[in-house]
Amino acid sequence: MPETNPTACVIIIGNEILSGRIKDENLPYLAAALAARGIPVKEARVIPDVEADIVAAVNAVRSRYTYVFTTGGIGPTHDDITAASVAAAFGVPCSRHPEAEKILTAYYGAEANAARMRMADTPQGASLIPNPVSAAPGFRIGNVHVLAGVPRIMQAMFDGIAHTLDGGAPVLSRAVSATAREGDIAETLSAIQESFPTVDLGSYPFGLGDRIGTCVVGRSTDRSQLDAAIDAVAEMFRNAGLDPSFTDPMAALQGE
Amino acid sequence: MPETNPTACVIIIGNEILSGRIKDENLPYLAAALAARGIPVKEARVIPDVEADIVAAVNAVRSRYTYVFTTGGIGPTHDDITAASVAAAFGVPCSRHPEAEKILTAYYGAEANAARMRMADTPQGASLIPNPVSAAPGFRIGNVHVLAGVPRIMQAMFDGIAHTLDGGAPVLSRAVSATAREGDIAETLSAIQESFPTVDLGSYPFGLGDRIGTCVVGRSTDRSQLDAAIDAVAEMFRNAGLDPSFTDPMAALQGE
Repeated sequence: MPETNPTACVIIIGNEILSGRIKDENLPYLAAALAARGIPVKEARVIPDVEADIVAAVNAVRSRYTYVFTTGGIGPTHDDITAASVAAAFGVPCSRHPEAEKILTAYYGAEANAARMRMADTPQGASLIPNPVSAAPGFRIGNVHVLAGVPRIMQAMFDGIAHTLDGGAPVLSRAVSATAREGDIAETLSAIQESFPTVDLGSYPFGLGDRIGTCVVGRSTDRSQLDAAIDAVAEMFRNAGLDPSFTDPMAALQGE
Repeated sequence: MPETNPTACVIIIGNEILSGRIKDENLPYLAAALAARGIPVKEARVIPDVEADIVAAVNAVRSRYTYVFTTGGIGPTHDDITAASVAAAFGVPCSRHPEAEKILTAYYGAEANAARMRMADTPQGASLIPNPVSAAPGFRIGNVHVLAGVPRIMQAMFDGIAHTLDGGAPVLSRAVSATAREGDIAETLSAIQESFPTVDLGSYPFGLGDRIGTCVVGRSTDRSQLDAAIDAVAEMFRNAGLDPSFTDPMAALQGE
């Protein structure tokens, strides 16, 4: 893929993911949504609700990638420390954001207690990211976008700011699979990869009940090169006496 | 939690996770299995199939955590570069492992081609991790354990070496939930957290159809402190006129 595309890193802040209590759903959503805008996610980190870890991670990645997205830790309880930690990463105070204060006061009315109003504290210089689900906003500071952890809230926040991101050529993807074993096609596939340097070819074995095989997924910003590479892989399968299917058995499985 | 417990980091190597094509299942498994052995996972990284990124990630975390586990990239195709990359991280050659060579020769017989035999290449000084599912072994070098990416193979590999890990006091967990809103209990919950410094209390809002509420999850290596903290949270719910349930609605949902 061309190195001129912008890039992204996702930081998932949450003890509940590191403990195995719940499976993260935010990386798959952000990865697909960003790739469609030509902003491939190049790295993700899952870190605990610990200020030193959040500061270290944010500062390690914000200079390396075009955009950083964090999820989690922006609620009203004691374990929600993302805003204060991101402020520390940027070396700025974390203080009450007047616009956020208005939003929360209007939303909660008489229930606007101290814990809830703490959700109006943002790093100095941050701009708000609207939360159309439950009011408490996320924010952006520099290239770092701070989003909620609850997937449907995170998604609504991201969808609202997606148009503000400078995207690149969309990362297109195509899959072709057959009942081939990876070890039998590896050499030919490697030669095809070398012939198409602007396409990333990934090889993934699958086993679905009695049906085992290999799915080859191509990704590129160049439609004609992607089509040519996938056609070459399909031809490789046919030459081995196999009938290629232009689908991804694993993606279909996860979509169920 | 006591800082004397050993710690772990999981490195998920795979473009297919970063692209959003499939959801990672290996972190939840390793996180739960390691926590049960008193080895909490403190960080996870998802990185692409790129040697420089693998080298950088392995070297960034192997001195910081007691154990490192990588998943993915140990198959026979061109995009399987984990062994060579981990060798580069340790500054040692990657060469044919005699024992792995024997295993693969016996398993594949006449089908033991060059691509398949490449799976016998390991960093110098590595010891093998048996693969009871599909023969091609993982390996351990220093504190880094290199496992397969396919979940059922990764799990079989991990289960086979789990007894070799020096564990700590198991990380115990208990949940209590009620139809409370986070913002209404935040202040009292914060005071409870301060009273039980050896227990990590996480607060997680949930919404399941019409039922919304908050689940508080406690984690500790100290059973009596954990029980006392969860009892205090349950009492907080009762004082608010709510009926606490000692279950985790989200964990139950994901178990379906």
